[in-house]
Amino acid sequence: MSGGRPVRLRVFSLNCWGIRYLSQHCAQRYEMIGELLCREEHDLALLQEVWSEKDYLFLKKKLACSHPHSHYFKSGVIGSGLAVFSRHKLHDAFLYRFSLNGYPYMLHHGDWFGGKAVGMVVLKVLGLTAHVYVTHLHAEYCREKDGYLPHRVVQAWELQHFVRHTSSRADVVILGGDLNMHPQDLGNRLIRAYTGLRDCYTETDKFDGCDDGITLIADNPFTNKKELIPFEKGIRIDYILFKGSKKVCVKCESLSTTKGSVPGKAFPYSDHEALSAELLLQPTEGAGESEGGSDSCSADTLPELVDTVTEARTEVKVGLHLAERMRHTAARTGVMGLVLLLLELAIAAVPWLALGAEQPFPRASFYLLGALCFAILLTTLLLYVFYTTQVKALQGAEDQMRLAVGGLQDALRGLPRGQQGEPMLTTPDLHHPTPLDHEE
Amino acid sequence: MSGGRPVRLRVFSLNCWGIRYLSQHCAQRYEMIGELLCREEHDLALLQEVWSEKDYLFLKKKLACSHPHSHYFKSGVIGSGLAVFSRHKLHDAFLYRFSLNGYPYMLHHGDWFGGKAVGMVVLKVLGLTAHVYVTHLHAEYCREKDGYLPHRVVQAWELQHFVRHTSSRADVVILGGDLNMHPQDLGNRLIRAYTGLRDCYTETDKFDGCDDGITLIADNPFTNKKELIPFEKGIRIDYILFKGSKKVCVKCESLSTTKGSVPGKAFPYSDHEALSAELLLQPTEGAGESEGGSDSCSADTLPELVDTVTEARTEVKVGLHLAERMRHTAARTGVMGLVLLLLELAIAAVPWLALGAEQPFPRASFYLLGALCFAILLTTLLLYVFYTTQVKALQGAEDQMRLAVGGLQDALRGLPRGQQGEPMLTTPDLHHPTPLDHEE
Repeated sequence: MSGGRPVRLRVFSLNCWGIRYLSQHCAQRYEMIGELLCREEHDLALLQEVWSEKDYLFLKKKLACSHPHSHYFKSGVIGSGLAVFSRHKLHDAFLYRFSLNGYPYMLHHGDWFGGKAVGMVVLKVLGLTAHVYVTHLHAEYCREKDGYLPHRVVQAWELQHFVRHTSSRADVVILGGDLNMHPQDLGNRLIRAYTGLRDCYTETDKFDGCDDGITLIADNPFTNKKELIPFEKGIRIDYILFKGSKKVCVKCESLSTTKGSVPGKAFPYSDHEALSAELLLQPTEGAGESEGGSDSCSADTLPELVDTVTEARTEVKVGLHLAERMRHTAARTGVMGLVLLLLELAIAAVPWLALGAEQPFPRASFYLLGALCFAILLTTLLLYVFYTTQVKALQGAEDQMRLAVGGLQDALRGLPRGQQGEPMLTTPDLHHPTPLDHEE
Repeated sequence: MSGGRPVRLRVFSLNCWGIRYLSQHCAQRYEMIGELLCREEHDLALLQEVWSEKDYLFLKKKLACSHPHSHYFKSGVIGSGLAVFSRHKLHDAFLYRFSLNGYPYMLHHGDWFGGKAVGMVVLKVLGLTAHVYVTHLHAEYCREKDGYLPHRVVQAWELQHFVRHTSSRADVVILGGDLNMHPQDLGNRLIRAYTGLRDCYTETDKFDGCDDGITLIADNPFTNKKELIPFEKGIRIDYILFKGSKKVCVKCESLSTTKGSVPGKAFPYSDHEALSAELLLQPTEGAGESEGGSDSCSADTLPELVDTVTEARTEVKVGLHLAERMRHTAARTGVMGLVLLLLELAIAAVPWLALGAEQPFPRASFYLLGALCFAILLTTLLLYVFYTTQVKALQGAEDQMRLAVGGLQDALRGLPRGQQGEPMLTTPDLHHPTPLDHEE
């Protein structure tokens, strides 16, 4: 039993950049990552971009002693790339696949094939229930003209939803991963504001790592420096977030990152830097005590939250407009392909009808053009179906956001005291239920 | 405030069979459904197969007075078909799309395009928090040779996972929908055993409806009688399930179904019968009191649960084997297409190399064959990608089930008292944490 004794939990997070045959020194780097984890014996290692199951199995074998429990989250075509290694027994695992994740035809980006998701594992540490999440959001390839922004915002929205609704039973909540967002980006603000999760980097007094906590650094030999412009030194896109509960007060004692090189090795662990956080879990004495901040939003932060959700909704609307336009283009092109095909059939019918015609029929061109028409029809049909799923997903997210903003504004509008329902969207702890409208 | 006063909650569930232009008398039936809901004023109406948003909007308009709050869940290509109408304000909505849902090329079944999912809404009734779920699982087209069984089992697995993890904050949990499973089918047993949800039909003393509670009845004019063989009268596949919490004791006072015809109308509401349940929510006095059964599994039910999950795992393995075989077939056919294409190119090269050859080159056959090869290649590529996602999803579910069985068996094996962790997978209420292995 914990009995008020503090528990120390060490958490590791790394985007492993494990694309077999494409990522440089992939096998050697996994060897190094395995050695590091074996040596450091973190309680939890949250890994992203472990694209190949073979590499997961390699790590599983290597970490059999230090981390006897593990889970690999499978989804999409390639997989989610998410893996958890734990010193503590895993009691449950659950995966939520994001509804939007790029485009299948953007082969060089490849996010769509990855089946991006958030994985959850449930474990117990000295009698405390920890819900641990590992995730990897869609990459940002161009900050100035980021066509994936609506996708990432929807992913962040779904992430906060999933974490908020599945973590209410937890004494401790930990989220680690590559969010592909700068600290103050919209999605990050959404996640923090809604879930009440706190950022290890901003919460700790003891930080050892790159300046500003950056995890994608220019000094890393695998990093494309051009992609970092105008952030010359690098950016912070990997995070370990945490929160406690009424039962446990959680503090981040220290956070460290690797610094682009590994002593005695020719190259670093990955193109991202690894994070290591030391969390101190202090069970509170009385059950009724609440941790500072808890997971609910105070009335002070409500206006800010309304602004954030409204901003997100605008972004989703932009994405929706784009997806609808793309779907429209696909439909129009499909119709053109069909018209071309009918035209061709008509042309073919002319010599057949005018039996006496002497001119040779251009068979080769006819078949080529026919094949082209069919290809156009098939491609546009597939694209139409694909864009329809995108439109549905974006509309779904927008509907949810509208509902959320409505609830928040109701709360803000300040219904008469005693009549005002708690803003349930933002205060998951409903220990003082109050009546609402439309009651019997 | 509820203050111990019992609350009555009336819940309606119906599969609306709303395929525009295909379902018979679609518009008239929606008109009838709208009238029924307006008149009956259930607290909650959980609708499935509302495939067209226009029909949802029609109902929304019609029910503006009786059910001012509603949510339509969008997903997939066509949508999830799920809608909720409520007399109480909805505070939050969240959707979980099932990872498996049939095959896109089974156009005549069409489930794949529906984007099957489980939708959740959060509402408050007299200070009590209710988490309400609406869902529709994959149809069973042939019970003897049910190729979709692994898909439905995975959907049931994901459904119980989602409900279990997102409902811990709820005082009342309600699940309604067309589960497409007989009462004692594997998926149904999984859902009930894991979530602790109870079936209105078996729990109520006051039932008014078709014999055995059947909801797909032979007497319904829209039903294909042949599909019901050997269940001559019909089958029970629509359900309203519920459970309470430590704070609220829930009882099902009565359940009724429609009986295949509507007085004064030429045809019934749908090809399914509608369910109406009356739930009595009795807030318990002390907070610590637990409702009979609660949502945890007792040690008595553990062996049964192990058997159920093992059975589900076997079914998923069968599905996995099939998906892998299909993927293999797609790959082999693709390779054959490629070989054929190369062969054709080689044949084409022969007259080009042997410049003196006099025989005319069969252009038409050449192009046709080429187009065929391309079509084979493209189709098999798409199928390969599709089956890979199926394999990943099935593997993922199987991994989760293995983890679950492991946890259950640990609990069963009876570690020494005080050492034995609570079977967390099955006992979501962890108010008495005990230490586990691998602790610091």
